[in-house]
Amino acid sequence: MAAAAPPPPPVPAPTTLPNPTPTGHPLFARVRLADPSDVPHIHKLILQLAVFEHLTHLVSATEDSLSSTFFTSPPFHSFTIFVLEVSPNPFLPTLLHPPSQPPFSPITRTLTLDLPIDDPEKETFRSVNSDGFDVVVAGFVLFFPNYSTFLGKPGFYVEDLFVRDCYRSKGLGKMLLSAVAAQAVKMGYGRVEWVVLDWNVKAIKFYEEMGAKVLEEWRICRLTGEALQAYGNAAN
Amino acid sequence: MAAAAPPPPPVPAPTTLPNPTPTGHPLFARVRLADPSDVPHIHKLILQLAVFEHLTHLVSATEDSLSSTFFTSPPFHSFTIFVLEVSPNPFLPTLLHPPSQPPFSPITRTLTLDLPIDDPEKETFRSVNSDGFDVVVAGFVLFFPNYSTFLGKPGFYVEDLFVRDCYRSKGLGKMLLSAVAAQAVKMGYGRVEWVVLDWNVKAIKFYEEMGAKVLEEWRICRLTGEALQAYGNAAN
Repeated sequence: MAAAAPPPPPVPAPTTLPNPTPTGHPLFARVRLADPSDVPHIHKLILQLAVFEHLTHLVSATEDSLSSTFFTSPPFHSFTIFVLEVSPNPFLPTLLHPPSQPPFSPITRTLTLDLPIDDPEKETFRSVNSDGFDVVVAGFVLFFPNYSTFLGKPGFYVEDLFVRDCYRSKGLGKMLLSAVAAQAVKMGYGRVEWVVLDWNVKAIKFYEEMGAKVLEEWRICRLTGEALQAYGNAAN
Repeated sequence: MAAAAPPPPPVPAPTTLPNPTPTGHPLFARVRLADPSDVPHIHKLILQLAVFEHLTHLVSATEDSLSSTFFTSPPFHSFTIFVLEVSPNPFLPTLLHPPSQPPFSPITRTLTLDLPIDDPEKETFRSVNSDGFDVVVAGFVLFFPNYSTFLGKPGFYVEDLFVRDCYRSKGLGKMLLSAVAAQAVKMGYGRVEWVVLDWNVKAIKFYEEMGAKVLEEWRICRLTGEALQAYGNAAN
């Protein structure tokens, strides 16, 4: 029908030109592979995630327990973490986190904000090696390979995706999740999966809009603590 | 209250002695690590699982796709499969599947059945290298490491647990799941998790009786197919 529509009326000459230089505040964002120096920040982000999910009573992770279980395999073959950093200044790849890990080239985006962000935890989350560059850690995603026997191929499972409060609703969570999806596509993997709390309708809407399906019929079963010990011991 | 109960009456002398030699039929069961020669059986079991779950339309796995994605890492560090074998005869560890993989010693159980099992697919599922020993593959479990950031340690996720129809309700599914739980305990892992369809009340009851918790609030989100491709491509 659009092809049969009458031609548009002539456009009147503009009386004012659009502003060629936007007056917004730029925020530079970067997704990169985490390394061991990021563990203190990751630990703090995990605690903030637990507060958000009303699940602080379940947290027993320490910096030591994270350090001893992360980075034991090459990235993407086991537990893998992307860190999200933001800065009011452009990233200089040769100066910040110079070891550019070959399996992953950092992804950068530039946002334009109406107002600069007032980050109350700027000092706590200042990036390692960021002296003089005003870079802070704003979030992370932890993921690892899973397997679909129906597809006969691996995928990625996203265990945690978190962006600090003052950086939310700016597309940064989407940037992290997209980075995982892009890596899955690059590796020929079949799926990216994660879980969401059924009361988190805002998140569910967001995931559905990006094309994800929420599997209503499946429930997670968990064997942990004393029940795991008892059941495991009974096998021998 | 039991301690205050009156003493039981004297037991009369039995007029017939209990049968000291049970007349049941023994079924010997063994859980061992799968190897590449098991792939044809595993593929057939995956198809049977899809039929059971009413999800055959989702299956695109082939023997080739399984072969190219399994056994790429040492067992327990990535995708790992235990095969369940059964036989009317005791297993002779030195004769069947002689390469006793060092990271896992096979687990055996002996069941006593009232009637021998009539396995209509005995020839299809006859074990590799079982010539003359009457061993068949009766089920499998596929699992891999996952990670709990709250615990700060890994666990195992069980993607598939399946026992063929004629071998069900004999404790063999429990034997497979126990083998995974025992391995988790052995490795100091914090959890074993899996999913169940919410209409499968028999399975849910079984899992709850073994001490597992069903997480009612969580829903799985899945990004796959064209939506995954589109989302992943948008990141670059």
